[in-house]
Amino acid sequence: MEFTITQIAGMLGGQVSGDGNQKINMLAKIQDAKKGQIAFLSNPKYEQYIYTTQASAVIVKKDFQARKEVTATLILVDDPYSSFTVLLEEYHKMMSFQKSGVEEPSFMAANSTMGASGYRGAFSYIGSNCKIGNNVKIYPHVFIGDNVVIGNNTILHSNVKLYGGTKIGNDCVIHAGTVIGSDGFGFAPQADGTYKTIPQLGNVIIEDKVTIGANTVIDCATLFGDSTIIREGVKLDNLIQIAHNVEVGKNTVIAAQAGISGSTKIGENNMIAGQVGIAGHLVIANNTSIGAQAGISKSIKDEGQRILGYPAFDIKEYFRSYAVFKRLPDLNDRLRELEKKVLSTEIPAETDSSRDE
Amino acid sequence: MEFTITQIAGMLGGQVSGDGNQKINMLAKIQDAKKGQIAFLSNPKYEQYIYTTQASAVIVKKDFQARKEVTATLILVDDPYSSFTVLLEEYHKMMSFQKSGVEEPSFMAANSTMGASGYRGAFSYIGSNCKIGNNVKIYPHVFIGDNVVIGNNTILHSNVKLYGGTKIGNDCVIHAGTVIGSDGFGFAPQADGTYKTIPQLGNVIIEDKVTIGANTVIDCATLFGDSTIIREGVKLDNLIQIAHNVEVGKNTVIAAQAGISGSTKIGENNMIAGQVGIAGHLVIANNTSIGAQAGISKSIKDEGQRILGYPAFDIKEYFRSYAVFKRLPDLNDRLRELEKKVLSTEIPAETDSSRDE
Amino acid sequence: MEFTITQIAGMLGGQVSGDGNQKINMLAKIQDAKKGQIAFLSNPKYEQYIYTTQASAVIVKKDFQARKEVTATLILVDDPYSSFTVLLEEYHKMMSFQKSGVEEPSFMAANSTMGASGYRGAFSYIGSNCKIGNNVKIYPHVFIGDNVVIGNNTILHSNVKLYGGTKIGNDCVIHAGTVIGSDGFGFAPQADGTYKTIPQLGNVIIEDKVTIGANTVIDCATLFGDSTIIREGVKLDNLIQIAHNVEVGKNTVIAAQAGISGSTKIGENNMIAGQVGIAGHLVIANNTSIGAQAGISKSIKDEGQRILGYPAFDIKEYFRSYAVFKRLPDLNDRLRELEKKVLSTEIPAETDSSRDE
Repeated sequence: MEFTITQIAGMLGGQVSGDGNQKINMLAKIQDAKKGQIAFLSNPKYEQYIYTTQASAVIVKKDFQARKEVTATLILVDDPYSSFTVLLEEYHKMMSFQKSGVEEPSFMAANSTMGASGYRGAFSYIGSNCKIGNNVKIYPHVFIGDNVVIGNNTILHSNVKLYGGTKIGNDCVIHAGTVIGSDGFGFAPQADGTYKTIPQLGNVIIEDKVTIGANTVIDCATLFGDSTIIREGVKLDNLIQIAHNVEVGKNTVIAAQAGISGSTKIGENNMIAGQVGIAGHLVIANNTSIGAQAGISKSIKDEGQRILGYPAFDIKEYFRSYAVFKRLPDLNDRLRELEKKVLSTEIPAETDSSRDE
Repeated sequence: MEFTITQIAGMLGGQVSGDGNQKINMLAKIQDAKKGQIAFLSNPKYEQYIYTTQASAVIVKKDFQARKEVTATLILVDDPYSSFTVLLEEYHKMMSFQKSGVEEPSFMAANSTMGASGYRGAFSYIGSNCKIGNNVKIYPHVFIGDNVVIGNNTILHSNVKLYGGTKIGNDCVIHAGTVIGSDGFGFAPQADGTYKTIPQLGNVIIEDKVTIGANTVIDCATLFGDSTIIREGVKLDNLIQIAHNVEVGKNTVIAAQAGISGSTKIGENNMIAGQVGIAGHLVIANNTSIGAQAGISKSIKDEGQRILGYPAFDIKEYFRSYAVFKRLPDLNDRLRELEKKVLSTEIPAETDSSRDE
Repeated sequence: MEFTITQIAGMLGGQVSGDGNQKINMLAKIQDAKKGQIAFLSNPKYEQYIYTTQASAVIVKKDFQARKEVTATLILVDDPYSSFTVLLEEYHKMMSFQKSGVEEPSFMAANSTMGASGYRGAFSYIGSNCKIGNNVKIYPHVFIGDNVVIGNNTILHSNVKLYGGTKIGNDCVIHAGTVIGSDGFGFAPQADGTYKTIPQLGNVIIEDKVTIGANTVIDCATLFGDSTIIREGVKLDNLIQIAHNVEVGKNTVIAAQAGISGSTKIGENNMIAGQVGIAGHLVIANNTSIGAQAGISKSIKDEGQRILGYPAFDIKEYFRSYAVFKRLPDLNDRLRELEKKVLSTEIPAETDSSRDE
């Protein structure tokens, strides 16, 4: 990226105050920025830095009134944070999509196709009968099995592994080490205590605009024709487990190390925190918010709930119960005291001894 | 797969009712099946679909009585689900073992050997002095360190990583991204607060018929000659942590994201649910069933227990206690009420204020 | 390794009792050791084995008095365990650093440099503008993005993935499948329920003497110029999640499957057990010890605490409360009994029925 401040102001619909001809090649925080960089000032508590910053440009609110001398050129806009975000996004796109061409050695089966403007890193592998869209970036060590379909503008970071039959939409980003389409965990118990493998013949479908973190695993569906489905706009973090036949609804966000068991259907716009576990064959309503480490053992029917605990229930009630839990020894003592008074008898020895278990 | 219905009926020991010459090339659910596919009807609540299915063949119970016209050819058997499972397994084997030969570039040290009918994908790596059996399938990006031994008919999916010295039996399946034989987590604290690495010189032994999911990690044993051992028939899901010197007994099943700490011995035929954590140096009896997210801090001596909680105890007792936990604020209020009546004094202020902590 | 017993005794500052000319090529436990191997005897309860071991040499305490005939040569030292550890370390170094040279095919951009005595395994990938120190071991399938800096004597096991901009110090060991520098999980909610990606432009800095297990993930910081930082001497186990902008203090040890949310600062010399979850934007004091599966939702200000539970509090208090939790149904019955006596009325039906929820 190398633009003049005037060009950037034009991009943002802002006004330049100062020298607009300086060149900008990087974004930075106002307290860290150096010459050639652009920063923003949104939160008033950072105002002090605008008088000392070495940034060449700072994006500020239209009505910003400097109380001391400012050496940086200013770009005046309605919402500096939002404008900075626009620049970050543009920068990110430029960075993300700068790779192109084919590095060797790499492997692509002869009957597979890849669209224009793509990148295939060294040691990447594409199996038979794959259809890959335009502007797709395939980093080194990516494995793509047979019969995989990928839309446009999707990025597969190093060593993503797609089992045969996986379908991925447009504008997705999948981070390093993530596995998509591995066998669901299905075993039929036999009379002698051993297990018979139930073949996993379905696939995984990832819709458009899905982002998936690193070292996450999404298993394929069990029966042929069935799919584990991640709907449009879903954001999955790192080290998440999505079991066979799960469906994750539109725009749901799942934090790191959460796990969803087989055949569960997660609604839209859920917020699922880190290390949450959800049992199999459940239905979770839209707009459910599940607190960190919660365990979900029953379907959630009413939308908009916030839950916590194992098994999880209303988060406010959980915290109320937990506040008493922390004082349970005291509660127990008070109860014993009352018993003494009311029953006018000794507490039986076995109850008392259980205190130390 | 392409067989006639008559051939499939022969395989299953079933009788054909209808045109047995049609060709079948795929398995499907009865409600989704298309021409050329075979389905099954076991659960009576799906009976409606047999009158509308486009399947070329449906496997039904011997005594099935159609109440309307059925266009599909029927195969009459004793147990339709079981018969369908047989077909699924056969299909799975055909699919799993269809890869063979060597894709280039791939790397195998000159003093390593590999049996007949194998597959070595592009970019797979086999170190020195390895002995690999017959019909082993090694997918792209698999890493096999030095001195590794692998039995017959084992499948290593893309990017499985076996550290040097690992031993794997026959008929195992290991899914993508799984790491076997990484260093155990052993560090000796020093007086200055730093840690000295305790070298990890043992290995991992995986016995026959073990299935391991994706992105799981199994550490090697600490001392030379010792092994972390996964016994015959064990099924491990995705993202599981197995620490150094652990032993997992025959036919034990462990669900995703569970973790077993160092030197713990898990018995046979355990069922360990998702996100369970088990402390180190414990012994868990055979046939133990551990509920999701439970934490195990003590050895389990009696077989056949079902446990939950942190630390875990009997699952029924856990749920009884938890039912009261959910009503603890109410319990607390009732106790306070009684105290008022019995003690005829005000509750001290500090007890009261602790309610909001 | 092949040394005479006399040479080894010299290394350890010990005295030889017996034939010092025998050759030693391996370390083993006293009960398992064979000819050509060296073992140690420290714990008196293993003394029986010294009379039956086939080890060629055993390291014993200076004042060891044999009560029967011993065939092994003895090395007499002050502290046999400590001396054995020295040998283990030497052995480990020899094993770890025996690989050198370049295996083909491998990929290194022309403007990247690598110091002396290094190893680059087949199918390893090094992007543009990287600076890699001396004696660095890069195993097969390692991915190193652009602009990465690595110090001396660092080992990257198979398939470690370093995103562009990562900085790693000297004497680090990173195990297979670990991802460093993946995008932080940052998404800005939009009015229509969708999310906008917040570009992640920072990097990860790993200081000296850090060990990281397998399939762990460390995300990069959000803003350019910011870093997620793992300080000197930190030991991370397998399958850990470290989110964007986290800092882990010197010599802190984190066990498997723990997760640290964004922007949290962990102090020095913490002990964080397995499956712990720590919320974002917290500060955890030095010398904090966090029990397995605990959930941390508030900053820890006082050093040296031991905590457990969700949310976590003092571990002793947790166990005291939990002991009462296990008897809650009994507590509830006792309270009910008292109520009957004191209130001389029936318990209302709705309270009673809630018992079965």
